[in-house]
Amino acid sequence: MSQDLHSYMDGLGAAARAAATTMAAASTAAKNQALMALARRLRESGPALAEANAKDLAAAAGLDAPMRDRLKLDAKTLATVAEGCEQIAAMPDPTGEITGVKRRPSGISVGQMRVPLGVFGMIYESRPNVTIEAASLAIKSGNACILRGGSEAIHSNKALAALVGDALAEAGLPREAVQLISTTDRAAVGRLITMPQFVDVIIPRGGKGLIERISAEARVPVIKHLDGNCHSYVDAEVDLDLALKVVDNAKTQKYSPCNATESLLVHAAQAAAFLPRIGAVFAAKGVEMRGCPRTLALLGPLAGARLAAASEADWGTEYLAPIISIKVVDSLDEAIAHINRHGSHHTDAILTTNHPNAMRFLREVDSASVMVNASTRFADGFEYGLGAEIGISTDKFHARGPVGLEGLTSMKWVVLGQGEVRG
Amino acid sequence: MSQDLHSYMDGLGAAARAAATTMAAASTAAKNQALMALARRLRESGPALAEANAKDLAAAAGLDAPMRDRLKLDAKTLATVAEGCEQIAAMPDPTGEITGVKRRPSGISVGQMRVPLGVFGMIYESRPNVTIEAASLAIKSGNACILRGGSEAIHSNKALAALVGDALAEAGLPREAVQLISTTDRAAVGRLITMPQFVDVIIPRGGKGLIERISAEARVPVIKHLDGNCHSYVDAEVDLDLALKVVDNAKTQKYSPCNATESLLVHAAQAAAFLPRIGAVFAAKGVEMRGCPRTLALLGPLAGARLAAASEADWGTEYLAPIISIKVVDSLDEAIAHINRHGSHHTDAILTTNHPNAMRFLREVDSASVMVNASTRFADGFEYGLGAEIGISTDKFHARGPVGLEGLTSMKWVVLGQGEVRG
Repeated sequence: MSQDLHSYMDGLGAAARAAATTMAAASTAAKNQALMALARRLRESGPALAEANAKDLAAAAGLDAPMRDRLKLDAKTLATVAEGCEQIAAMPDPTGEITGVKRRPSGISVGQMRVPLGVFGMIYESRPNVTIEAASLAIKSGNACILRGGSEAIHSNKALAALVGDALAEAGLPREAVQLISTTDRAAVGRLITMPQFVDVIIPRGGKGLIERISAEARVPVIKHLDGNCHSYVDAEVDLDLALKVVDNAKTQKYSPCNATESLLVHAAQAAAFLPRIGAVFAAKGVEMRGCPRTLALLGPLAGARLAAASEADWGTEYLAPIISIKVVDSLDEAIAHINRHGSHHTDAILTTNHPNAMRFLREVDSASVMVNASTRFADGFEYGLGAEIGISTDKFHARGPVGLEGLTSMKWVVLGQGEVRG
Repeated sequence: MSQDLHSYMDGLGAAARAAATTMAAASTAAKNQALMALARRLRESGPALAEANAKDLAAAAGLDAPMRDRLKLDAKTLATVAEGCEQIAAMPDPTGEITGVKRRPSGISVGQMRVPLGVFGMIYESRPNVTIEAASLAIKSGNACILRGGSEAIHSNKALAALVGDALAEAGLPREAVQLISTTDRAAVGRLITMPQFVDVIIPRGGKGLIERISAEARVPVIKHLDGNCHSYVDAEVDLDLALKVVDNAKTQKYSPCNATESLLVHAAQAAAFLPRIGAVFAAKGVEMRGCPRTLALLGPLAGARLAAASEADWGTEYLAPIISIKVVDSLDEAIAHINRHGSHHTDAILTTNHPNAMRFLREVDSASVMVNASTRFADGFEYGLGAEIGISTDKFHARGPVGLEGLTSMKWVVLGQGEVRG
């Protein structure tokens, strides 16, 4: 890395650290004022933003359609992110909450206060709307952030970051609370993730490979979202109609999200009754089924079904596509062991009418979200009522599953005394 | 690292991972039975343990007295750790708790369940009692652990680990829930902290240098306790008698703990009234005072005082000794800025009768424990009511300040449905 880039990144870091102190002490009113000002400025700045976005789109002429689509900053996207800012302004302030204050035998009262983490670094794809989402979550949670968006969106992101700075200034808050890395030099990411003196946590978005690389190299904690190899398990005692509806939704409502079911487990006692029915649904929707031998024996007669024998690798694969692996199991124990071994600890569901089995599944499946009689597609910050989602964590440490504003906070201990001393 | 050691560590890791699954599903009754059995076996095994400990003490003949003292496993130490096991057995099970279940517009109910983290690795000094403390916390929290004690205690630790294994087996739980690294090869630590497939978190105890090195090299999260450069700040509005009592206790009740006050800040409005009084107390107890110029001017006339000019380095120093740095400040703002800049984010206290100042100090001082009118010496798991303490965290991520059983757990999301699907 060049000395210039090193100095530039250290400058951003020091400014973020200073801004974080101010943001932590900022009033809820000031933070909400900045969010409302940002919403207004986003609505007012359509033409200027379109101009910046046009530069990015022109340079991205060679990219594929979905990527260009994500890069686009049109009136509809602007309206959505502006509304998002207003929604976050309307949410309760996550910081300042004091909980669990208890009097101790020594006379002191001890509780915990929720406070911002400090500075987070966010690394994300070429999606300009994420710039505003990250900025608004930083403002509301009283943190500072350093943003590194995909290089294809650099002009759009610079224009958006300028709006964020103006909105912060309008509310009397430091512009440096939200800073965009203005160079597209890749070495900047390497520095961002290795300056613990300035950055408290890194939130990467993107492919599994990128996130694994960042986690391996980071010198600060990473809220990481790896893959979602989610399971739906149909138990021996089950309402088959309910299971059919839920498993269909979990797999086919959308194929690309991380919370879509990728693997179906069916108890042997229900395999003959359930597999031909769900198989027909999948066949009609063009979903390829990769089954164990017992599954293939039951589905073989199905007209028009795309069937294949599942390999060992299939049990561990997140397809994000119209493909599902299917296995017949002989017990709840086998289902739980299979999920804990082959799953990605993201989201797994049991379909059952048996209460002890439901409770065992909830307790023993080691995943961020465990569900009974519901579609795995519900694993989402908005569906869970978090209001906003900064990411989804497949880790157990600090934050697990969908991460909202609270994931950007920490609890410090508060001791209230009247002159107590230790004996 | 030799291939043998690599295989040995991987074997421990795989066994721990398997045991963790069993421990996570173990009943509270079985975990408590193991803890009570361990307490009984510790009391019964005095002679055998004394024999093992004698080997360690003989080999440690060249060590200094405090180190030999910590290494000693006498009847009193055994009684204390046995009682500790019984106390942990009597505590509520931290796992299985389900909180915050709320119904969502979609019809699903969403809450969170507290579950064990999985496997923790603990690296500690040559203190055999820590082997039992770590084992008992692992058992109660439903985790598995891999222990690496100081090499000087290897015989004692092996004997204790055998007792733990017997107690687990007596309760029908896997011996592999608590494993001791039986080699003193240092490369074992390097492997322990870099096998995320088997170990979820590392808890190191020891000097700052060791913990920094482990944090730098670890490939899993580390609950780290660096230094405790704690401050007591005497505000402009204050009960001077109360402040005198508390500051005296915070500095002199014990010099070696991490929560002892190392730096005293005094508002200029109280400096002339307070400094000569506390200075006389410190002088009588032989505490060296390293002051700013204004402090020295006020304390100069004090008979028998050990005075020195504070250097810039003094503001950042954890003495763990009868030395204190003292600075006169002109405002609460200056006090807060000084603490956030020079402190170690461990524990800091304000002595004040002014409510807004107390609240600002609590909010704006960025430390794991913030206190009003109490001795910094209270920052401790037992004093906070956690019952047991696995360590103290100077981090913000996951666990902050004293870490009890809950610090060894994580919250997973629980979704209870009646066949809901996403639209």
